[in-house]
Amino acid sequence: MSVLYLDDLTPGLRMGGPSHRIDAGEIKRFAAEFDPQPFHLDEAAAAQSAFNGLSASGWHTAALCMKLIVTSAFKPAGGMIGLGVDELRWKMAVRPGDTLTIETEVLTVTPSQSKPRGTARVRHALRNQDGAEVFSMIGTILVPMRPKPGEKSP
Amino acid sequence: MSVLYLDDLTPGLRMGGPSHRIDAGEIKRFAAEFDPQPFHLDEAAAAQSAFNGLSASGWHTAALCMKLIVTSAFKPAGGMIGLGVDELRWKMAVRPGDTLTIETEVLTVTPSQSKPRGTARVRHALRNQDGAEVFSMIGTILVPMRPKPGEKSP
Repeated sequence: MSVLYLDDLTPGLRMGGPSHRIDAGEIKRFAAEFDPQPFHLDEAAAAQSAFNGLSASGWHTAALCMKLIVTSAFKPAGGMIGLGVDELRWKMAVRPGDTLTIETEVLTVTPSQSKPRGTARVRHALRNQDGAEVFSMIGTILVPMRPKPGEKSP
Repeated sequence: MSVLYLDDLTPGLRMGGPSHRIDAGEIKRFAAEFDPQPFHLDEAAAAQSAFNGLSASGWHTAALCMKLIVTSAFKPAGGMIGLGVDELRWKMAVRPGDTLTIETEVLTVTPSQSKPRGTARVRHALRNQDGAEVFSMIGTILVPMRPKPGEKSP
């Protein structure tokens, strides 16, 4: 898969990506290390909680989103250099057995006035096996322009 | 540690929390699972990258922030029920051996018009051992009001 330069990005461009099936063991393991709240750790406690059953930590979902971005066709030259992320939204619980699929959409592209690069705002969304959007976030990334012939690639 | 109700939260309230020392093994392990980019996986590749050395995945830093929040004195009644997170900002690379400490500040508190609960906007920041802020984010959480005598706790 070739890398993407700023020149390749246009608002509205959408790129699909791979999927990940999450299981209860992963949910509990992540939660034990990073988000040890009962509704992410234990089925019985989760059944009594507002989540009404075991669900993945929101940070587990966000990390899986990053995993699917990095392994998707959306490959900015030089890597995913994030300047910031906004609007993380968890819309539905992620449950054991769910299969999450990533889609990335380019929102805006802003070339630098002075350097051979620019920024892009991109929206990443995860859908489950029923097609329901469970999570989204909007990132701003730094992307180089395509080098001119004879120039060194960044 | 007693839990916090909406009644306990006032803008400007700051709560410190525990620390976490991160090592190279953790950085590589998280990256291998969730953010397999060379600058998070391999010292030699990282030295050649824009990061100029091994650094933690931004999602690892965010997950550690959650871990430190959950294990801090900031304990909303019913758990950290996030409605969304904005303005994730990575200000400095997190390096092997860094010790990260959490501080949470209450920004705004908005009681519900109809239910015995409300929302609070809170800013979480991680500082390293030099006192430099390396990461921050702003979350909106759902927090119940303190039950009146005789009412069932949420």
